[in-house]
Amino acid sequence: MIQYIKVDSRSRTETIDITAEVRALVRKSRVRDGVCQVFTFHTTAGITINEGADPDVQRDIICFLNKLVPVSYPFSHGEGNSDAHVKSTLVGVSQTIFIEEGDILLGTWQAIYFCEFDGPRSNRKVAVKIIPGNR
Amino acid sequence: MIQYIKVDSRSRTETIDITAEVRALVRKSRVRDGVCQVFTFHTTAGITINEGADPDVQRDIICFLNKLVPVSYPFSHGEGNSDAHVKSTLVGVSQTIFIEEGDILLGTWQAIYFCEFDGPRSNRKVAVKIIPGNR
Amino acid sequence: MIQYIKVDSRSRTETIDITAEVRALVRKSRVRDGVCQVFTFHTTAGITINEGADPDVQRDIICFLNKLVPVSYPFSHGEGNSDAHVKSTLVGVSQTIFIEEGDILLGTWQAIYFCEFDGPRSNRKVAVKIIPGNR
Repeated sequence: MIQYIKVDSRSRTETIDITAEVRALVRKSRVRDGVCQVFTFHTTAGITINEGADPDVQRDIICFLNKLVPVSYPFSHGEGNSDAHVKSTLVGVSQTIFIEEGDILLGTWQAIYFCEFDGPRSNRKVAVKIIPGNR
Repeated sequence: MIQYIKVDSRSRTETIDITAEVRALVRKSRVRDGVCQVFTFHTTAGITINEGADPDVQRDIICFLNKLVPVSYPFSHGEGNSDAHVKSTLVGVSQTIFIEEGDILLGTWQAIYFCEFDGPRSNRKVAVKIIPGNR
Repeated sequence: MIQYIKVDSRSRTETIDITAEVRALVRKSRVRDGVCQVFTFHTTAGITINEGADPDVQRDIICFLNKLVPVSYPFSHGEGNSDAHVKSTLVGVSQTIFIEEGDILLGTWQAIYFCEFDGPRSNRKVAVKIIPGNR
């Protein structure tokens, strides 16, 4: 079964911490052991796992991606968001997280982020699927 | 069980839509729910999920990757394809796709692409493995 | 169940081949078919699958990533390792590997690498989880 997290973005490019929402879905599932797949259905967004302690890290990641793949680059695609598609392919649209003892297992500093590359937008959807491991 | 999709590329760098082939394997498996892992065994290729509607998006992704990682960069590796190895690591060699009600589940604009970074080549292999979810 | 591989890095940035360690864990598990998830809990590291034959390829990947995301870039985060966080998001912290006939299945030239982006460090941890496929 797939469950959904709705995300609203406020800037053209930003990362939004969805760790608490993913954790809540995993705990509610009562699955003790397995993996949790977090996937976005959008082609101008991504999912990443990175430091959640110092907000400067997220700012640095977004600022650097904007410098690496400039929105102003002369792309062919008419919608003016080709940089967002490139960023989505570089970051990826999905992450796999371990489930241990009924909870997600991340490193001390790790958090799960929805990456908005073509915002601001309402109702961005992140799909979460829990796959039991032991049987 | 693993099944294979064969891909022939016509350019040095291009993306090739393999969504229909992946979908056909999932439907044939009769697995109603789970995930489908798409993986390439090549080190100068990748798998990505991105927009399938406007071909300009794929052109923009490939052109930008070629600008970001130039084939002409002074690499050490003698085969002249180090840019392809770097692109493979940036894009990734595998993607996980949800299976719901016996079919793959993608966003409205999403398609699955084999990324050729060192073509043209015949018989590039993409492996597909279906992992049932519910039991 | 999750098992761990410990990695010690000797440089600030390097890739370390962990294929033999992952293979040993899969063989020991006696799981014949499934997938093996390799995940690092660090936010300044990554996991990639790329060529293991010619060491120049790994050197080229690391050198190019250091040129693409320079440590000297004017980042906000005070620890001086924002480049490592960006590299981690670009490469990714996890890879999924097929298990067939009780062994990992990789391409002829593929090897699994822990990517150190903020070393040298002792006791970097890589988590390996085996998810049986057939049931």
